[in-house]
Amino acid sequence: MTRVDVSDDSLFGRDNLPYGVFSTPGSEPRVGVRLGDSVVDLALVLNDDVFARPSLNPFMAQGRARWAQVREELGVRLEGDLPDDAVHAISEVRLHLPFDVADYVDFYASEHHASNLGRLFRPDAEPLMPNWKHLPVGYHGRAGTVVVSGTDVVRPCGQRKAPDETAPTFGPSRRLDIEAELGFVVGAGSGFGQRVPTADFDEHVFGAVLVNDWSARDIQAWEYVPLGPFLGKSFATSISPWVVPLDALQQARVQTPRQDPQPLPYLQEAKPWGLDIDLTVEWNGDVVSQPPYREMYWSPAQMLAHQTVNGASVRTGDFYASGTISGPEKEQRGAFIELTWGGREPVMVAGEERTFVADGDEISISATAPGSSGGRIGFGEVRTRILPAQQEPL
Amino acid sequence: MTRVDVSDDSLFGRDNLPYGVFSTPGSEPRVGVRLGDSVVDLALVLNDDVFARPSLNPFMAQGRARWAQVREELGVRLEGDLPDDAVHAISEVRLHLPFDVADYVDFYASEHHASNLGRLFRPDAEPLMPNWKHLPVGYHGRAGTVVVSGTDVVRPCGQRKAPDETAPTFGPSRRLDIEAELGFVVGAGSGFGQRVPTADFDEHVFGAVLVNDWSARDIQAWEYVPLGPFLGKSFATSISPWVVPLDALQQARVQTPRQDPQPLPYLQEAKPWGLDIDLTVEWNGDVVSQPPYREMYWSPAQMLAHQTVNGASVRTGDFYASGTISGPEKEQRGAFIELTWGGREPVMVAGEERTFVADGDEISISATAPGSSGGRIGFGEVRTRILPAQQEPL
Repeated sequence: MTRVDVSDDSLFGRDNLPYGVFSTPGSEPRVGVRLGDSVVDLALVLNDDVFARPSLNPFMAQGRARWAQVREELGVRLEGDLPDDAVHAISEVRLHLPFDVADYVDFYASEHHASNLGRLFRPDAEPLMPNWKHLPVGYHGRAGTVVVSGTDVVRPCGQRKAPDETAPTFGPSRRLDIEAELGFVVGAGSGFGQRVPTADFDEHVFGAVLVNDWSARDIQAWEYVPLGPFLGKSFATSISPWVVPLDALQQARVQTPRQDPQPLPYLQEAKPWGLDIDLTVEWNGDVVSQPPYREMYWSPAQMLAHQTVNGASVRTGDFYASGTISGPEKEQRGAFIELTWGGREPVMVAGEERTFVADGDEISISATAPGSSGGRIGFGEVRTRILPAQQEPL
Repeated sequence: MTRVDVSDDSLFGRDNLPYGVFSTPGSEPRVGVRLGDSVVDLALVLNDDVFARPSLNPFMAQGRARWAQVREELGVRLEGDLPDDAVHAISEVRLHLPFDVADYVDFYASEHHASNLGRLFRPDAEPLMPNWKHLPVGYHGRAGTVVVSGTDVVRPCGQRKAPDETAPTFGPSRRLDIEAELGFVVGAGSGFGQRVPTADFDEHVFGAVLVNDWSARDIQAWEYVPLGPFLGKSFATSISPWVVPLDALQQARVQTPRQDPQPLPYLQEAKPWGLDIDLTVEWNGDVVSQPPYREMYWSPAQMLAHQTVNGASVRTGDFYASGTISGPEKEQRGAFIELTWGGREPVMVAGEERTFVADGDEISISATAPGSSGGRIGFGEVRTRILPAQQEPL
C-alpha cells in the first residue's frame, strides 16, 4: 500500500483534485485524479467501472449530486493508504483528451480583448459593437479539432488577402496567433427547448480547463464577414488535460466587473460567477503575458444562460470557452495580435523581436487560483509546439 | 417470405435505396433501407450487426468500398423474396435521426440567397461581400440540436432590437423563418492536419438529406456582428430521415454555374458536383416555393475541400449543409425573409397574407432528382410544426 505525499505548497493539494484521463504503458486510457505529483486510478480506488473509461463523459453525465459524493469520498480515501497499482508518478503517465467534446462554443467575454480587436480589425468604427454589453457574444467552433496539451499543431494554410492586394492568395498563415482562455465543460445536459437559468450553472457545469484557441489572423480577417470565424480557428483548439471541478473553485469566486447597462433579467446573477484566476503565457519559455480572469465582463453562468435561452439544449461534453482573457495592461493581453498591436510593436522572446508564432515555437499557458486551504491550486498547463505547414502542391 | 412491389413511378425505386433508422413497436431503432412504401431491415437481410444499431455511423465509418458492396448486394437481394419480419410498411414504423451528428457546418453557397440577404441585412452596402466568390463562406452550427423530421420546434425567445429602439428587449422571436437546404453527411473521416481534395469528395461523403435550418431573423440581426449567427440559428435544425447515397445521385450530377473569378486551385474540380435537384417548400400544405439546387454556386465537393484546407479533420457523422437554396425567380427563394422581402411583400397561404412563421404552422420541404432508371428519385421530406414560445417568466 502507498500513501501519497503532497507538499504544502503543491498546486495539486487536497483542495484541488482535478480529473483527467491517463494511460500507462500497461493500461488503456482511464480516469484519474491528480494529487501532488501523483495520478490516482479512480476505478481501482473507488471500485467503480464508470472510471475505467477513456473519457470523463460517463461520470460527468451522472450529475452534480454524484460529483459531490465522489469528491467527498476522495477526500477521505486519499488521506489513507492506497493500493500500489492505483498510484502512478505524473512523469510516468500519458495524458489524453479528458472528455469527448460534444458542441464547442467560443465566447468573447473580455471587454479589453473585444475593444482591442475592434480597433485592430475595424479601425474606422467604434471598437465595441452595440450588442456587446447586452449579451455575451459567442459562436460555435469545431469540436472535432479540440486536442489535448502536447499535441503538435501544423501551421494552417488558407486564403488571405492584404488590403492592398486585388485577389486572395493561398499559402501558410503568416499571422498565427494564440488566444489564452478558460473553458467550461458541461456534465449534466438539459432538454430540447429548455433554458438553463444562471442559478443552475453548477448543476450543469462540471469543471474548467485552460484553452489555447489557435487563430490564423490573416485567414480570419479575409473570411469572417458576414458569418464569423471559420477556417481561421477550426484547425486546432488545445486544452489542458486536468479538469478542475467547480467545487475546487469556490474560493476563487469574485464579483464580475460592474455591468452597465444592467443586463436583461435572464442574464442576472444573485451571486456572480466571476473567477479570480491568474494565467501565465510562456513563449519558448519566456513569460510574455499574465492575463487576469477576474477582469472578464461576462461570467460563465451568464454564458450558459445565454446559449440556452433560445431553447438550445446542452449535452454531456458540451464545451464553451471564455474568449481571449485580456486585462487593461499591455502585459495582460492574452493574444499576440493585441500584445504586439497587430504586429507593429514586437515583444522580446529569448532575445529576439517577435510578433506572431513561428514554426518550432512552443507556447504554454498555465494558471493558478486561490484554494480553500489558504494556498493556491493549479490548472496545470496547455503546451503546444507548432510544426511547419504542409508544403505539397494542391 | 415477401417480395417488395414497387410501382414504376415510385420515388423510392431500386435506383434510390436511401438509408435510415427506424423502429417498430416491437424493436429498438435499427438501420433500414426504403423501397417503395416499405422499409427493409438490413441487419436481418444482410445478416450484419453493423445495421442493428440506432445510427448509421458504424456502417458509414466502414468507408466507400463497403458502401458500394452493400448497395450492389441490396440490388440483388431486393429483387428476390425477403423474410416476412424484415419488411415493414412505411406507415407502421417510426423514423429516427439517421446519424449521430459530429460537427455541423452551414454554408452560404447560393449567390441569389447571399445577394438577397445582403440587400436586406445591409441595405447601404454591396450585397455580396468581397470574399464571397473566392471561397464558400460557412460557419459552424449546433450539432446537438439537429433533429429529425416530425420533431416539433418551440418558438425561440431571445434578444432583439429594432433599429428605432434604444435597447434590446427579450421575448419570442417575431421573425421566425425557414431555410430550405441540402445537407451532406461524412461517412469516412480524415486525419488531423490533412486536407481532402475536391476529387476525394465521394471517398468521404456518404449521402445527402434535406435540411430546414430554422432561423430567428430578429435575434440573428441583433447578435450576428462580429462573430456570426449563434442563437438565431442554434435552437433547431431539422433534417429528413432518409440519407440518399451519393451513388443514387450520379444521374443528377451537373455543372455548377460558371465561377468567375476562377477559384484557387484547391477549389477546382475536374468534374463538378453540381446537382440537379428540385425542392418544394410547403407552408401549411400550400406550395410557396420551388428552389432549384442546380443554381448553387459552390459544389459540395468544394465545400468539403474548403473546410479541410487548413488541416481541420472530418469525422464520421460530420454534417454540412449548403445554405439556403434560392434561384433567380421570386418563387424559387428558399427562405421566407427573401420570399416576402423582409416581410414587406406577404405571400398567400391558405387564403391569408403571411410573412414569417406563425405558431401552429407546419412547414414541409421535399425534393426529387433524376434517377438512373429514367424516372425520378425522392428525398422524402422534412416536416416540422412550430409550437408557441415558453411563456414562464425568467
